[in-house]
Amino acid sequence: MNRIRLTRRFTFEAAHALTHYDGLCRHIHGHSYKLEVTVIGIPLTHSEHPKDGMVLDFGDLKNLVHTHVLQPLDHALLLREDSSAALLTVLQQEGHKLLLTRFQPTCENMLLYIKDQLLPHLPEPVDLHSLKLWETENAFAEWYAADNA
Amino acid sequence: MNRIRLTRRFTFEAAHALTHYDGLCRHIHGHSYKLEVTVIGIPLTHSEHPKDGMVLDFGDLKNLVHTHVLQPLDHALLLREDSSAALLTVLQQEGHKLLLTRFQPTCENMLLYIKDQLLPHLPEPVDLHSLKLWETENAFAEWYAADNA
Amino acid sequence: MNRIRLTRRFTFEAAHALTHYDGLCRHIHGHSYKLEVTVIGIPLTHSEHPKDGMVLDFGDLKNLVHTHVLQPLDHALLLREDSSAALLTVLQQEGHKLLLTRFQPTCENMLLYIKDQLLPHLPEPVDLHSLKLWETENAFAEWYAADNA
Repeated sequence: MNRIRLTRRFTFEAAHALTHYDGLCRHIHGHSYKLEVTVIGIPLTHSEHPKDGMVLDFGDLKNLVHTHVLQPLDHALLLREDSSAALLTVLQQEGHKLLLTRFQPTCENMLLYIKDQLLPHLPEPVDLHSLKLWETENAFAEWYAADNA
Repeated sequence: MNRIRLTRRFTFEAAHALTHYDGLCRHIHGHSYKLEVTVIGIPLTHSEHPKDGMVLDFGDLKNLVHTHVLQPLDHALLLREDSSAALLTVLQQEGHKLLLTRFQPTCENMLLYIKDQLLPHLPEPVDLHSLKLWETENAFAEWYAADNA
Repeated sequence: MNRIRLTRRFTFEAAHALTHYDGLCRHIHGHSYKLEVTVIGIPLTHSEHPKDGMVLDFGDLKNLVHTHVLQPLDHALLLREDSSAALLTVLQQEGHKLLLTRFQPTCENMLLYIKDQLLPHLPEPVDLHSLKLWETENAFAEWYAADNA
């Protein structure tokens, strides 16, 4: 077997607030998130096929993540759906891109959200291997399929 | 299960010498070390708890590493305890921050030292997953709990 | 046990073309590849040995990769051996450094080539753990021994 992991890196700008947090992160603030999406599979061996030698075309991986992850998250404000109703109303009225979440939008929970967004859309012979999400240059979280098998 | 790996990156400045080494590294010299400390756990789900959605507060991880790793290592000189007694005496007299080690202070052994410093202090529901130590931009070593189970 | 992973990072400049690809990569073009080579082993514990505390001397790992990977790949043009005969003839006549491959020279297949180049030359107590090859800043592939056991 020749299984290979394939990764593409993305960035997106988002804001969030951690409701009930005992520190500065309870305020609305933002990050330049970096995201790595890793799939695993066996490179195609079919010498006349356009995708010969590929686990997945890097371009296809990019499009998949743009549609299912960056579209909802980039330049969005993630707030828990039980946040102040007055605040949510005004933000919606003034046309901000709100993503209301059932979960606290920590780096950890955003990874699980991204995993749920991507899993149903991966093309058949490829598996989602892992996700890595940087909140800052020095702080990141990772989800691995193998940690949750 | 939703196990997530959580990492924080640090830097510290340290000097060392590799006794008996057959090259330049036998001389006292230094590096701007970079260190990544990774823990693993399940994000808390308790919507009114300040740490809701977290495996461990990034701030708590930072404090833990500052106390148990950066305090002994940053701006220290690591030398084997069987180094020249005359040298050690003068360095101590002149007030340098010496860390005398029973081991050769290679990148590999420094990782094992860091692991021993951290393991007893991790809060209960979280496990130490791995450590990554860069000696230079292009050379690093890693300890993984799973490699040593 | 105290198994440690040891990695060195390299760069090389190479050109390639993906025959039959349905996009821009079918043209000859190049990348500044970055490569990380990771071995695993137990640090030597022999207090008077020059390599005390090392899994493998970083310098020895560097030399190994230079000889078996960078020498064939750096400033080379990788083309499938079934590429246009007219093109191959002229390139050879004009003295370019051609590496003719039986495989499509994708990032995935280049990893497998690098793995085959290195495996026979690793010194006895050390195993090849993984390889990571960046085609661009935002796209890379990885081979892990454990994925193919």
